[in-house]
Amino acid sequence: MSAEPFAIGLLGHGTVGKAFDELLEERADEIERFNGRRPVINGVLTRDRGRFDEVLAGADLLVELIGGLEPAREYLLRAMRAGKDVVTANKQLLSQHGEELFETARAHNVRLRFEAAVAGAVPVVRVLEESLSATPIERIHGIVNGTTNFILTAMARGSTYQEALVEAQRVGYAEADPSDDVSGRDAAAKMAILARLAFGSPVHLDDVRYEGIEHLHADDLEYARELGLGLKLIGTAERRQGGLSVRVHPTFLYGGHPLATISGAFNAVTVESNAITELTLSGPGAGGRQTASAVLGDVVSVMTGGARPPAPPLALDLIEDVDSAFYLHLDVADRPGVLAAVTKVLGERDVSIKSVVQHGMGERARLVMVTHQVLESRMRTAVAEVAEFDFVRSPPRAIRVIEEEFL
Amino acid sequence: MSAEPFAIGLLGHGTVGKAFDELLEERADEIERFNGRRPVINGVLTRDRGRFDEVLAGADLLVELIGGLEPAREYLLRAMRAGKDVVTANKQLLSQHGEELFETARAHNVRLRFEAAVAGAVPVVRVLEESLSATPIERIHGIVNGTTNFILTAMARGSTYQEALVEAQRVGYAEADPSDDVSGRDAAAKMAILARLAFGSPVHLDDVRYEGIEHLHADDLEYARELGLGLKLIGTAERRQGGLSVRVHPTFLYGGHPLATISGAFNAVTVESNAITELTLSGPGAGGRQTASAVLGDVVSVMTGGARPPAPPLALDLIEDVDSAFYLHLDVADRPGVLAAVTKVLGERDVSIKSVVQHGMGERARLVMVTHQVLESRMRTAVAEVAEFDFVRSPPRAIRVIEEEFL
Repeated sequence: MSAEPFAIGLLGHGTVGKAFDELLEERADEIERFNGRRPVINGVLTRDRGRFDEVLAGADLLVELIGGLEPAREYLLRAMRAGKDVVTANKQLLSQHGEELFETARAHNVRLRFEAAVAGAVPVVRVLEESLSATPIERIHGIVNGTTNFILTAMARGSTYQEALVEAQRVGYAEADPSDDVSGRDAAAKMAILARLAFGSPVHLDDVRYEGIEHLHADDLEYARELGLGLKLIGTAERRQGGLSVRVHPTFLYGGHPLATISGAFNAVTVESNAITELTLSGPGAGGRQTASAVLGDVVSVMTGGARPPAPPLALDLIEDVDSAFYLHLDVADRPGVLAAVTKVLGERDVSIKSVVQHGMGERARLVMVTHQVLESRMRTAVAEVAEFDFVRSPPRAIRVIEEEFL
Repeated sequence: MSAEPFAIGLLGHGTVGKAFDELLEERADEIERFNGRRPVINGVLTRDRGRFDEVLAGADLLVELIGGLEPAREYLLRAMRAGKDVVTANKQLLSQHGEELFETARAHNVRLRFEAAVAGAVPVVRVLEESLSATPIERIHGIVNGTTNFILTAMARGSTYQEALVEAQRVGYAEADPSDDVSGRDAAAKMAILARLAFGSPVHLDDVRYEGIEHLHADDLEYARELGLGLKLIGTAERRQGGLSVRVHPTFLYGGHPLATISGAFNAVTVESNAITELTLSGPGAGGRQTASAVLGDVVSVMTGGARPPAPPLALDLIEDVDSAFYLHLDVADRPGVLAAVTKVLGERDVSIKSVVQHGMGERARLVMVTHQVLESRMRTAVAEVAEFDFVRSPPRAIRVIEEEFL
């Protein structure tokens, strides 16, 4: 028996598009053997060639690898309105127009797959959608940006931020303008998508608070190393105070945390739930071939009838101000009364100190504290007040801490 | 609209069966919201109650949580022949009668799901079946037995094997008769199932060579700790010499290996492929609630139409004798010529030495070597010959090494 080929319309033929084309060629026999139909690309649209309507008309499924908001959004909407299943790797689009896309998929009863949008070849989208539909999720922590993890890994080995960034650019892990990565914005887009999947509540990129890694100092990483901690750019999505908190910021992790040992350009996501305690997925976060492999996995899941249109949203309140433990680094003049003055201000703002280490360095001293859990807004107010003391010689640095086993 | 409930027939109501029952109750609303139908248990068969035919007749799907070979095998075959989808957590059955079950599923075009049979809540079955169908797999390494990993973790912290085993029994991670776990046989069954999934080739439990952890010594773990290595019970399934090798044995891992930091009763699996380099999944390997969560995930995937009957097998040759690097530990009399005699025998068997450390201890000495890659059969012959020297004071211990970055 020889079934009809399964026709794929491909939008975009850059790095990922070419890698997808190649991988499909290599794997077509095997996919046909398993699924009965042979996947073939029967139309390609790029800036220079092809017409969208023709590509769409000949396709059983459309793969969007153009990136950016427009015309990717318009093409995906038109395809779904025409009753076609779609696969995309477009995190910008999903984090900014996700509900419109999901709504359209539901209305036209088509599949919208996007494994490659979040963590490269790490199948976290599938696992959240399918395996974990049986279990209520409490929290997700993720290293979802390979560029920043590469840089932080190099800094943990002694590089400065600038050296590490240059190296990341040299090996192709960072772009000439790295701001989307190092600011935390790319990670925020991915966390918005994961939060929607895990908690069913719409989260727009603009709803995600993020901080990047540009302001981290070598001595924050040295401090982490001395104590056997990891310092990572962590995205968090979690149930908090009856609502949902989604955020991205540098975080200290105790050495035994499953994300503490993720190094280089790898991505990893930890999913916590009462039923399964904790599940971790890790793998390469970037690379044309890895992304292409995730896209092809989505194509296969559509071929096998596996995926369903996304469920309608549940709306949870977004909680902006959550509590956290903090590491606080102060560069102060080494004179009597400094510690007393600092702890008095913190105490007035209900910031309770768990541990403190003071290192004299001649005229100056370094004061490193770890606080108990405190609302972020309180911590910020307290830090702003501490910063005003004349004995504080550079801006204080406050970094969140995931507390288990910490200190 | 209110669709018909989705009727589940449950075989077995022990620890996992009860946990499944509870979890289903908790999650039924959410699953109905996502999938349109409400899952309900409408028949239970235990030793004391229920009749199989009635449970089967009323069910859309059968969940088998009896364990063991019979009557589980007969029930699953009868259910599939009656056109019912089935979910099982039964690794013994799948590793010994897998092809018969797969064949029956294909013949009757029903789904046979078994996520819980391999690594508890870690969704490695799903990931191998679906995400990775797009990429050719080269190798799988797994820590797939939580009991032995718990014991090795305790030994790495200084316990003796016996102390660690007693502790594992006390906290419920080891059974009164632990032999199925500590011998490596349980891990071998799981590796047979994973190998079938990853490579499409039938692998019977009897085809898997395994060694357990009973003969490991505290000083092997001490040696691992000194060098920053992990010593784990590792299952391996990999393409080798045009065929397939599937085996389980204690293995030294360099500190950066993703499996080196998996501690306690956790399970983890690393999948290597050219397209994605390396993907790691980890999480709790055992526990009623974790297993129940994997079973319920399978139920949901059947409800959403996600899974297909297994593909027909490809037969690869099973390669028994593969090469590997080895650590070799010799307890010898401390006298001249010992090292020369040992290295001469090894050299005659083409065992090439990468590094050697000799520690004098009064009358005796400890000789620890790491070899380059060598065929296992050659290594065994060489070790048997070395064991015959009168200066060798206790049986030599040879343990495989995963070489990257090793020494």
